[in-house]
Amino acid sequence: MNRKQLVEQIRKKKSVLCVGLDTDIEKIPSFLLEKEDPVFEFNKAIIDATHKYTVAYKPNIAFYEALGVKGWQSLEKTINYLNENYPEVFTIADAKRGDIGNTSARYAKAFFEELSFDSITVAPYMGSDSVKPFTGFKNKWVILLALTSNPGAFDFQTQNRGNSDEMLFEKVLEESKKWGDKEDMMYVVGATKADYMRKVRNVVPENFLLVPGVGAQGGSLSEVMENGLGKEPNLLINSSRGVIYASNEEDFAEIAGKKAKALQQEMAPYIK
Amino acid sequence: MNRKQLVEQIRKKKSVLCVGLDTDIEKIPSFLLEKEDPVFEFNKAIIDATHKYTVAYKPNIAFYEALGVKGWQSLEKTINYLNENYPEVFTIADAKRGDIGNTSARYAKAFFEELSFDSITVAPYMGSDSVKPFTGFKNKWVILLALTSNPGAFDFQTQNRGNSDEMLFEKVLEESKKWGDKEDMMYVVGATKADYMRKVRNVVPENFLLVPGVGAQGGSLSEVMENGLGKEPNLLINSSRGVIYASNEEDFAEIAGKKAKALQQEMAPYIK
Repeated sequence: MNRKQLVEQIRKKKSVLCVGLDTDIEKIPSFLLEKEDPVFEFNKAIIDATHKYTVAYKPNIAFYEALGVKGWQSLEKTINYLNENYPEVFTIADAKRGDIGNTSARYAKAFFEELSFDSITVAPYMGSDSVKPFTGFKNKWVILLALTSNPGAFDFQTQNRGNSDEMLFEKVLEESKKWGDKEDMMYVVGATKADYMRKVRNVVPENFLLVPGVGAQGGSLSEVMENGLGKEPNLLINSSRGVIYASNEEDFAEIAGKKAKALQQEMAPYIK
Repeated sequence: MNRKQLVEQIRKKKSVLCVGLDTDIEKIPSFLLEKEDPVFEFNKAIIDATHKYTVAYKPNIAFYEALGVKGWQSLEKTINYLNENYPEVFTIADAKRGDIGNTSARYAKAFFEELSFDSITVAPYMGSDSVKPFTGFKNKWVILLALTSNPGAFDFQTQNRGNSDEMLFEKVLEESKKWGDKEDMMYVVGATKADYMRKVRNVVPENFLLVPGVGAQGGSLSEVMENGLGKEPNLLINSSRGVIYASNEEDFAEIAGKKAKALQQEMAPYIK
């Protein structure tokens, strides 16, 4: 998917909602466990119930890998289901990969070609040649970790660099502009640090930002919309647990749909 | 596996060789492609031929993920084969994972429980709560990226921090001492930067270091042994392509065995 298509979808749905498919076999409604592939059945129901309010889905790859071969099959079915039934939605492999060049190229192949995701999250620690192999795929995106939403973000990402005031995450943003542009590179910026949002926008005013941490992780939606949104609607705001585990009963999908709708309605007034 | 067992194995084999199983369907001998699971057949033959000279095996997870469900099956068969036939060797899932707490916990489950690896490589960018979930498994290890062997290592890892001379990778080493110790934490330190080895050893004199980049990536084995080895033999030196792709013919396993033996013999004089 290219930027124009994504922006169009956002304006049409008046939503920047990304639903995180952190599908946990121990948390899904127990009646699904009788099905042949409970994880896929759960995802399918959630997607069907939420897609009208949602512009992106983000399977968290760890939850699938934890189930081994079976998990990988559920992931494959989920991405195929999305691509066949809702080709207009943007898909994110939340994998946080990053390795030396020939290895990163393999991960790119895995997620862009084998599984046909639109994008993958990538960790920057290993620098240019670990990130570049993910760029250059037509209509595919790198989503680079810049400032994450977890407590450990303060261990390294906000450390000052050299004699300057520049923090590590600002250096990452600056450096990454050599590797991609607003047509193929987005950034993960934690919503729990909305006061840092302005620093981010100083360096990358136009790129899309993927914002985790609204909801269960405690970020404020309105603060993010006010500080993060560019002239074009260039945000994706993720909610995982707050949507997909809103109910644990027969009505889980219906309730997830209502939660997604409520978030979309909070977002709508900001989207021009 | 605990530290004592690993050290004993190193002294017995007089080797710190780790063989990287970067198994690429496009590079393995073509006659294997007729087999039901060419990747596993290749790994099995390489392991059988090299295990006498090798103390650790390191499947590079990207190469398996690139093949989807089939790749994950080959990986599962490979780790099971190692654990059943050569339980004395140390196993490394070279996965470079790292995510928020509950997600890192899933990856730990995937590689330590679902697949029974002894260790996993972890990226530090997201800080303490992204790394800690990998610790605390009995006889399992975190191998944290500190200073990698690729060109991009200079983009962020060697940047100075604040007003000090301390580089980011030194800060990572220092900070990580709060998360683990020499019984459960190792570090990735690129051999192509043997001049940095002393800096690393100043901060973590006793921990094991996993050293990639000897061979195809150009690091010097003797330099690494001289600068990196502690009183106890606390290094693992990886070679991937230089061993496993030494021949592309019927004799590929035999030649890989010879290459592994040659490396072991270079290592032996240094191991006390």
